[in-house]
Amino acid sequence: MSITHTLQQLGVVHRNITRADPAAVEKLSRFGVSTVHEALGRLGLMQPSIRPIYPDARFCGPAVTVLLQPGDNWMMHVAAEQIQPGDVVVAACTTDSTDGFFGDLLATSFQARGCKGLVIDGGVRDVRDLAVMNFPVFSRAIHAKGCIKSTLGSVNVPVVCAGAMVHPGDVVIADIDGVVVVPASLAMQVADAAEKREANETDKRARFARGELGLDMYAMREPLAKAGLRYID
Amino acid sequence: MSITHTLQQLGVVHRNITRADPAAVEKLSRFGVSTVHEALGRLGLMQPSIRPIYPDARFCGPAVTVLLQPGDNWMMHVAAEQIQPGDVVVAACTTDSTDGFFGDLLATSFQARGCKGLVIDGGVRDVRDLAVMNFPVFSRAIHAKGCIKSTLGSVNVPVVCAGAMVHPGDVVIADIDGVVVVPASLAMQVADAAEKREANETDKRARFARGELGLDMYAMREPLAKAGLRYID
Amino acid sequence: MSITHTLQQLGVVHRNITRADPAAVEKLSRFGVSTVHEALGRLGLMQPSIRPIYPDARFCGPAVTVLLQPGDNWMMHVAAEQIQPGDVVVAACTTDSTDGFFGDLLATSFQARGCKGLVIDGGVRDVRDLAVMNFPVFSRAIHAKGCIKSTLGSVNVPVVCAGAMVHPGDVVIADIDGVVVVPASLAMQVADAAEKREANETDKRARFARGELGLDMYAMREPLAKAGLRYID
Amino acid sequence: MSITHTLQQLGVVHRNITRADPAAVEKLSRFGVSTVHEALGRLGLMQPSIRPIYPDARFCGPAVTVLLQPGDNWMMHVAAEQIQPGDVVVAACTTDSTDGFFGDLLATSFQARGCKGLVIDGGVRDVRDLAVMNFPVFSRAIHAKGCIKSTLGSVNVPVVCAGAMVHPGDVVIADIDGVVVVPASLAMQVADAAEKREANETDKRARFARGELGLDMYAMREPLAKAGLRYID
Amino acid sequence: MSITHTLQQLGVVHRNITRADPAAVEKLSRFGVSTVHEALGRLGLMQPSIRPIYPDARFCGPAVTVLLQPGDNWMMHVAAEQIQPGDVVVAACTTDSTDGFFGDLLATSFQARGCKGLVIDGGVRDVRDLAVMNFPVFSRAIHAKGCIKSTLGSVNVPVVCAGAMVHPGDVVIADIDGVVVVPASLAMQVADAAEKREANETDKRARFARGELGLDMYAMREPLAKAGLRYID
Amino acid sequence: MSITHTLQQLGVVHRNITRADPAAVEKLSRFGVSTVHEALGRLGLMQPSIRPIYPDARFCGPAVTVLLQPGDNWMMHVAAEQIQPGDVVVAACTTDSTDGFFGDLLATSFQARGCKGLVIDGGVRDVRDLAVMNFPVFSRAIHAKGCIKSTLGSVNVPVVCAGAMVHPGDVVIADIDGVVVVPASLAMQVADAAEKREANETDKRARFARGELGLDMYAMREPLAKAGLRYID
Repeated sequence: MSITHTLQQLGVVHRNITRADPAAVEKLSRFGVSTVHEALGRLGLMQPSIRPIYPDARFCGPAVTVLLQPGDNWMMHVAAEQIQPGDVVVAACTTDSTDGFFGDLLATSFQARGCKGLVIDGGVRDVRDLAVMNFPVFSRAIHAKGCIKSTLGSVNVPVVCAGAMVHPGDVVIADIDGVVVVPASLAMQVADAAEKREANETDKRARFARGELGLDMYAMREPLAKAGLRYID
Repeated sequence: MSITHTLQQLGVVHRNITRADPAAVEKLSRFGVSTVHEALGRLGLMQPSIRPIYPDARFCGPAVTVLLQPGDNWMMHVAAEQIQPGDVVVAACTTDSTDGFFGDLLATSFQARGCKGLVIDGGVRDVRDLAVMNFPVFSRAIHAKGCIKSTLGSVNVPVVCAGAMVHPGDVVIADIDGVVVVPASLAMQVADAAEKREANETDKRARFARGELGLDMYAMREPLAKAGLRYID
Repeated sequence: MSITHTLQQLGVVHRNITRADPAAVEKLSRFGVSTVHEALGRLGLMQPSIRPIYPDARFCGPAVTVLLQPGDNWMMHVAAEQIQPGDVVVAACTTDSTDGFFGDLLATSFQARGCKGLVIDGGVRDVRDLAVMNFPVFSRAIHAKGCIKSTLGSVNVPVVCAGAMVHPGDVVIADIDGVVVVPASLAMQVADAAEKREANETDKRARFARGELGLDMYAMREPLAKAGLRYID
Repeated sequence: MSITHTLQQLGVVHRNITRADPAAVEKLSRFGVSTVHEALGRLGLMQPSIRPIYPDARFCGPAVTVLLQPGDNWMMHVAAEQIQPGDVVVAACTTDSTDGFFGDLLATSFQARGCKGLVIDGGVRDVRDLAVMNFPVFSRAIHAKGCIKSTLGSVNVPVVCAGAMVHPGDVVIADIDGVVVVPASLAMQVADAAEKREANETDKRARFARGELGLDMYAMREPLAKAGLRYID
Repeated sequence: MSITHTLQQLGVVHRNITRADPAAVEKLSRFGVSTVHEALGRLGLMQPSIRPIYPDARFCGPAVTVLLQPGDNWMMHVAAEQIQPGDVVVAACTTDSTDGFFGDLLATSFQARGCKGLVIDGGVRDVRDLAVMNFPVFSRAIHAKGCIKSTLGSVNVPVVCAGAMVHPGDVVIADIDGVVVVPASLAMQVADAAEKREANETDKRARFARGELGLDMYAMREPLAKAGLRYID
Repeated sequence: MSITHTLQQLGVVHRNITRADPAAVEKLSRFGVSTVHEALGRLGLMQPSIRPIYPDARFCGPAVTVLLQPGDNWMMHVAAEQIQPGDVVVAACTTDSTDGFFGDLLATSFQARGCKGLVIDGGVRDVRDLAVMNFPVFSRAIHAKGCIKSTLGSVNVPVVCAGAMVHPGDVVIADIDGVVVVPASLAMQVADAAEKREANETDKRARFARGELGLDMYAMREPLAKAGLRYID
């Protein structure tokens, strides 16, 4: 990689990306973010500043990534052309910004391309329309502030979004608990692990509901005593 | 303006303010905050820390302004008397505060005077009651913390609220995208510009829905290439 | 109190706590947080960063307290055993943390024990499930981040939660306006004061609704004039 | 004011501004920010998020104002030409941004024009060089993030900077306590009031140093007792 | 404790408090905040938002506590009378506030009474003067915003300051690492523990300086391997 | 990469990393963060929340990376063994934490190994000692809060630190303007670009100092006029 290449990291669109296996995406879509995050070894989560614009927003799909400049949403239009049905878009910014990079027109365009949702480390607007369209967005802010179209960012380069690394094609799962990123190459294995975890939890949930304590279910009493826990009457 | 005058900026109530043309207010009320903000040349927005207390809160009206002291809501009662039917109230504070300056009793009073809503760079409480009353409030916080009634602020002086300048009589439009302030003297012109913008967007929305790309609709391909955008396969 | 004692503040479970009088708890449960906070002399509120995970979450009950370590929810399981029907749990942390200390499994366990809700100065997850279970939680964040079970905290020691002091057995009232803590020994007196306040407010609300101004109802005109308020036409 | 005018608020440079009386500026420069803020009736302060880049930074002068776009410092170069010896520059942004809008090259240019300092509701960089140059800057952040030069803002329009309204020509006083804005028309009167206040404080300081209590000096004991203060032994 | 009592928590001054043993205070003053916090079992720290106003500020002494109302510093004058030589003052507020509650006049008064420093969960001003006077202050903000003297708080009641519980008479140690609170009854024991800890650290420091690894000094290699740590070449 | 591999991302130490060319590191060390960030095409910066613990802290070196768990600094000891003379350490955490992960003992150990400094997206303590030792640290907080040694993280895996991606061996340059990360493979090219940029700036600085305007030096007048800038007298 030459420096020329790097300087062009701003100003690059990768047209060919390796999307995660569609069967793995489908399987991952059955699980919540908390379950997938556990199945991935407690890694891959975005920061909790990213919130859904309406409570039942949720999606799962391979990522088209966008690197934005502050106050500029030109690259969102460039990204639209790279979307394939089932994709989700993950948009990062070269610096902290809450500007409204995305609204109902872009959402109409993305939805027409088959896009299933957006995660953006920035602001969005027209959120009532987005809710009516049932287009799920996870963002750092809701802000009417409009953007210009003037400076190059990039599409389908690796980005850091809300503290998480996202490569194009990675599976992004988002729901009310947050947003988690699963590397494309691990998608099916993580889906399998999530499935096992969920089965395991169903049993535990029933036992908890009957009044069994975690202290007994997980055999915690002995390690707690060893760690020095004292009960005082 | 003498210094006496300035020192009395705290402790002044202007009874006569020039409200925006009611026809302009009515026309502006048909448009969302994002549209009006664009029509105003992308100015006049409050910061995104101001949020509605319930999702479908919205209003549009000329502003009665209030300058509060921290932890003190005396001036809200003074402001109540200055409200005319259709007005909205914009409350700023001389310093950052999240105290609960406003609750269901003041809301009952404001509503009885014909007030259509409140924007406050501070906290509010009794928000369940406010929602039942259908009294829309946009605030920086929800906080039960009560206030005293001890120190003078002012009513109907120019205030800075959440980063936006508001003069008494300016039109304030608030919805889930945020809060925008339109100078009274520009209200009808901005309403006309908003109308044109909205008509224009209807057409664009239809074209986006049919799958047309912004790259083509806005003729962006050539300027992007000129700016140096490179596609990599 | 010896230093040994203090060093065991981390690693202590008090099994016997003095819960507030159940009749007082029942009576307090009829009032909102703002009313109780006023009845208590405008003290006892948590900071407004603590928010309900769904809009109509609310509860009232005596507190079982938990002191957590960052990223570690071991003590939540220890706390579960100390819950009696009607209790609420208040969880603080030895340092700022937004990790997801609590999810649907612990909620199932807490609910099976008769727990009426949780306040936590940290994060929670599985919030869709918690809403379906109708288990009210007030937290600083929603975050899928999982926890370990490795380090001792304590159960039923006094804790500082979101800026408020909470002793085991104190009554904690939580609703959309926030969270307030009533010392156990004052519970009935505060409940009585809240009752009087509410009765008083019903009358005021009716007068406000008829258009009477606070300026007149509270006889504010004279003190405002004395403080120097000037009306300008 | 026509709408054309407003839409050109972005894209306007006012070449003729009414600077505060130089004698008043000189006199105000003798006082600290806290004193001037008191002399102005406790108004005109910026938010405390604005901090000096080195501890003994301080200045006082009439303001040239700049309205920036996020991530874009084009208008700083436009502003440079409008600076007259003794001026200070106040830079606001149309939206929250911590980008590094200003560094040693612009500082060299500003200093060559006679500029005495900068207040910016954004980021700056090259701060070691700025300290060596003894060019005082008060900013919201220190950030190396570079800017583009692409979108129009304005010069010498009224701006809201860190919560304070600033008109071109107003006197801006900045020191380690913060930043205060004195309207140009009031500059001499505020300077006179500050002078009286300072004289008054010298006497009080001596009395405090001798051990006299504020309770006695300000005759607070009676009003405290009336307000209900109780001493408990 | 009657409700009358509680309602008078605002409006109470306790004149007699039990200060920690002076010998223990003297001994604690030899150690830094980090060491004392460890000696206390890793409890008692304030949040890191509290910072010194100059880098080498530091103090150690028994606390006179103050509970302030937002924007009101009346109680600071009441507190001054309760200060005994060697005391430090800890000021909390009934709600979040960054107002400038304290400046050079109050500092002169406090210093004349023998006060060794101030911790305040709020703002201070005149900080250049405070540095010249060598009066150490630890605060959440520096802000010139002036205060009124109008509403009762309390002096020498237990307060929560920046997340830490402080009782009157507790020892407060503050330096560049933060602020820690030692219960009066434990002061000597914690001082002894700090002394042992420091002696122990001197030895460790020497071993680290010679290149010994913590892995070996603390015998971590085996527990790390047991926990599953894998080295990859 | 198997899922086993991923689950072991927590619990992995890579002993062999490819450090950037020492000649490039040496050359980069001559330039400031702002210059290097520009030379890298305005990418690679950490967020401005990372600040030096003393004003003249600065370093440049290849990175040993650490992934910490909240409240746990076990991996810092593991990292110490991987340090080679001239290295710097970059520590990220699996979740937001301001705990004091690092103090004078670890600094002594790191310094004995030849470490030139630390960047940590968390807290540090003993900062007076660190300043005396002249061990530069860039951190998000100063906090005395101690850590446990209980849970595995990793050493020398790619980490996201304060919004920037860091691979082991990348060059990290830190000074008062912030922290920038240069990919190891680009180090010399970026150093060369920084050199050219700096030479270019020397000339510009001289011209600015003589009073030349950026408007003329950068030929901005025509593009500004084209963009619609209007001068008003």
